[in-house]
Amino acid sequence: MNYRMILYLLGVILILVGGFLLCPCLFALIYQEKEGWDILLTAGVSTGLGALFVLQLPKRRTMHAREGFLMVALSWVVISLVGAVPFVLSGVIPNYIDAVFETVSGFTTTGASILTNVEALPHCLLFWRSFTHWLGGMGVLVLMLAIVPMSGDSIHLLRAESPGPSVGKMVPKMRMTAWILYGIYIAMTLLQFVLYRLGTLFGWGEIPVFDSICLTLGTAGTGGFAVRADGLASYSMYEQALTTVFMILFGINFSIYFFILCKKFKLVWQNTELKCYIGIILTAIALITINLVLTNHTIHTIGDTVHYVAFSVGSVITTTGYGTVDFALWPEFSKIVLLLLMVSGACAGSTGGGVKVSRLVILFKFACAEVRHLLHPNAVDVMTVDKKRVGKEVIRGTTGFFVVYIALMGLCILLVSLDGFGIETTVSSVFATLNNIGPGVSSLVGPFGSYAAFSALSKIVLSLAMLFGRLEIFPMLLLLRPGTWRRNG
Amino acid sequence: MNYRMILYLLGVILILVGGFLLCPCLFALIYQEKEGWDILLTAGVSTGLGALFVLQLPKRRTMHAREGFLMVALSWVVISLVGAVPFVLSGVIPNYIDAVFETVSGFTTTGASILTNVEALPHCLLFWRSFTHWLGGMGVLVLMLAIVPMSGDSIHLLRAESPGPSVGKMVPKMRMTAWILYGIYIAMTLLQFVLYRLGTLFGWGEIPVFDSICLTLGTAGTGGFAVRADGLASYSMYEQALTTVFMILFGINFSIYFFILCKKFKLVWQNTELKCYIGIILTAIALITINLVLTNHTIHTIGDTVHYVAFSVGSVITTTGYGTVDFALWPEFSKIVLLLLMVSGACAGSTGGGVKVSRLVILFKFACAEVRHLLHPNAVDVMTVDKKRVGKEVIRGTTGFFVVYIALMGLCILLVSLDGFGIETTVSSVFATLNNIGPGVSSLVGPFGSYAAFSALSKIVLSLAMLFGRLEIFPMLLLLRPGTWRRNG
Repeated sequence: MNYRMILYLLGVILILVGGFLLCPCLFALIYQEKEGWDILLTAGVSTGLGALFVLQLPKRRTMHAREGFLMVALSWVVISLVGAVPFVLSGVIPNYIDAVFETVSGFTTTGASILTNVEALPHCLLFWRSFTHWLGGMGVLVLMLAIVPMSGDSIHLLRAESPGPSVGKMVPKMRMTAWILYGIYIAMTLLQFVLYRLGTLFGWGEIPVFDSICLTLGTAGTGGFAVRADGLASYSMYEQALTTVFMILFGINFSIYFFILCKKFKLVWQNTELKCYIGIILTAIALITINLVLTNHTIHTIGDTVHYVAFSVGSVITTTGYGTVDFALWPEFSKIVLLLLMVSGACAGSTGGGVKVSRLVILFKFACAEVRHLLHPNAVDVMTVDKKRVGKEVIRGTTGFFVVYIALMGLCILLVSLDGFGIETTVSSVFATLNNIGPGVSSLVGPFGSYAAFSALSKIVLSLAMLFGRLEIFPMLLLLRPGTWRRNG
Repeated sequence: MNYRMILYLLGVILILVGGFLLCPCLFALIYQEKEGWDILLTAGVSTGLGALFVLQLPKRRTMHAREGFLMVALSWVVISLVGAVPFVLSGVIPNYIDAVFETVSGFTTTGASILTNVEALPHCLLFWRSFTHWLGGMGVLVLMLAIVPMSGDSIHLLRAESPGPSVGKMVPKMRMTAWILYGIYIAMTLLQFVLYRLGTLFGWGEIPVFDSICLTLGTAGTGGFAVRADGLASYSMYEQALTTVFMILFGINFSIYFFILCKKFKLVWQNTELKCYIGIILTAIALITINLVLTNHTIHTIGDTVHYVAFSVGSVITTTGYGTVDFALWPEFSKIVLLLLMVSGACAGSTGGGVKVSRLVILFKFACAEVRHLLHPNAVDVMTVDKKRVGKEVIRGTTGFFVVYIALMGLCILLVSLDGFGIETTVSSVFATLNNIGPGVSSLVGPFGSYAAFSALSKIVLSLAMLFGRLEIFPMLLLLRPGTWRRNG
């Protein structure tokens, strides 16, 4: 294990976090908020510490898969621990465990909050919450790869941080791939912001500049922290619809946008994951709307119902977690559909969480192949997705992921059940954090609820669940495995 | 597809069911109950129909894997449909769907009931309910294999009906294996009955002969239908403890008993599944007892608490479903432990249901191997259980089973949620039927509840879930797959 290299990279990460923290300071300056000093202090200490680690350039700069995974897991823990400090210093969240929960929730783009009244927060900290979503969405280490020149082994970092069963380089050069990803990400974020402003300009709905900045960052990272206590309920239909569309767009594999930029439209059109993703969204909207209409839960008109259902479905499947209506009050069938969407999640290679649609496609095809195999034991069965053969490695990895995922879910449910809030709350809080959604489908942790009531143990478990979910289990598993820290482990 | 052969074997099954139905007639004769005539009529019609199918001996008597799976699935549907008729004819359960639910629940050894007052039932039908458990426990087709001389392909039947990832023949001859299985089964059933009688003889607790027959049959099949409204609560501590021990014994792989008969004690001692099974039981008893004591749910004394917890744990992990205390009223943590035990289930090759401990062992080792594989991509990893290499086929089959199992669970939960009884009831009713437990952990479907309140759709879904669970998914999947019934499917 190349500990030196890991320490060096951790230093780089600490300096980066220090840099990130300067952005909310800007807002503190604009709004003349004294909390800016707490943020500035944290930024200074973080950068200073980071500089200490970076001074010693390691001799051996090679990194293997295990160092990559470990590095990513460690970085995420460190940025969460550092990012939580301003909340405590400023007294906004006095308890450090709560502050870490909130920050982990931010960076992992979960959006689960322990705050009961976000409107009381100063602008600089509200911005910091939303900014963590944006940074965590595409990945802090991907950003690092784009900025810091690295050796060729850095593919492990990208692989460990990017969601989905198989991450390919878009272009041969690692650093270029990171740049392209962030380029598309920044362009789409700007587009959403401009469209919010256009809505205000043309009178389709008033939204303050600060709100549109924060909502855009939260949508882009598929995070879910809002700046108002009622989520997005008080904004206009235009702004809600715009958010729906952009949530769904940010849930699509970013390589699709790269294909569009390269004018490879055939690859877009034939993409199995994209087709399934759109199909699942439309089916879910139809099922829930029918269920709501049949059980007299219609919201105003049927048209409005579709609008609100589409928002909730988009919010849940992309694991954003914004709320316009309280789906915790919907009938049980609709809630179960939403819970299933939580598990499904968005596309691989997007900023969304969950198991990922492409994994579900692989698992489905694998199950079909297994049934065929039982019937015709001697037939040779080749599994393909997008007309490309799916290797045995990918199938093994995907089923392995799924098995550990379900086991982890069971373990978290068991631990959180100690709080005794009822099975619906327990199950949906674990679903909502492990899949990085944010709100669950029970009233306590629903879109307008909060995680404040949970015990410290549950908050730690759920914080770990968020990290497990965002980093797709294995890096965190490696970090917590005792063997990793033995000399020859 | 050899349809002729399937039809022929279905005829044999119908005649067998006709024969089985004569046993409750005996009880009708003893207790002078008029419902005996309804049973006799059903027996007659079933045997007559069966005879029609058997008259034509098929020319081609070969059977492939797919015919074996299909045959088993069809047989189970047919015996359930026929076995339900006496309940309707006698007017005890007027609705045929309810009667089918009850019979499926019997044969699949689930023990979920739609009856609210079993004590009102005539003895002959009470016996029939318990007898279906006993027949379904070891398998109706295994019995057929023992009785009817068959060609060598019949291993497919045994494989499709027996629970667990891999079924080996104990001895080279198929028919002999079936005989050994039933021999051990009958011997253990008799032993339990005798021990009940000894208890009454020595004054450790009074139990009527009829009750001890029915309870023994229900324990042996790990079924769960009782003959009193309060389950086993009103019997003595001796009888409850005896039942606990025998439930756990019937949840052990029957090849273990075969090893003991052959004096291969080393194989018993080294058996991984057995060790895990005992380990899980002891851990669960400890966890729940501690949880109950800490939350002031102690039952009388701590000793008594352990007694009742051991009963519930044994009842749930072996998927029997007998109740002495209402664990639906226990704190949430204990309920979640029980829900996890429901999924785990008993050992492969026992009469219990669930995913099976040996599958969990394989999944666990597979997950560990995957983590190692991610760290050392080029290392060759050989997976062993009981010092024997686990083939890739078995791993693929097990992960495939698990994926389909979770998907099926999601689908059933979605459909049952339409009834809107709340997520706890929905989830636990699906868990309890798919894993062939019987009672769930919510009050409505708890140990002293009933499934009567569900809609017809839910009852059909849950009936299918019981069959899917008992036959371990693939045979039923094949039966319901449209392609199976096409000419060249």
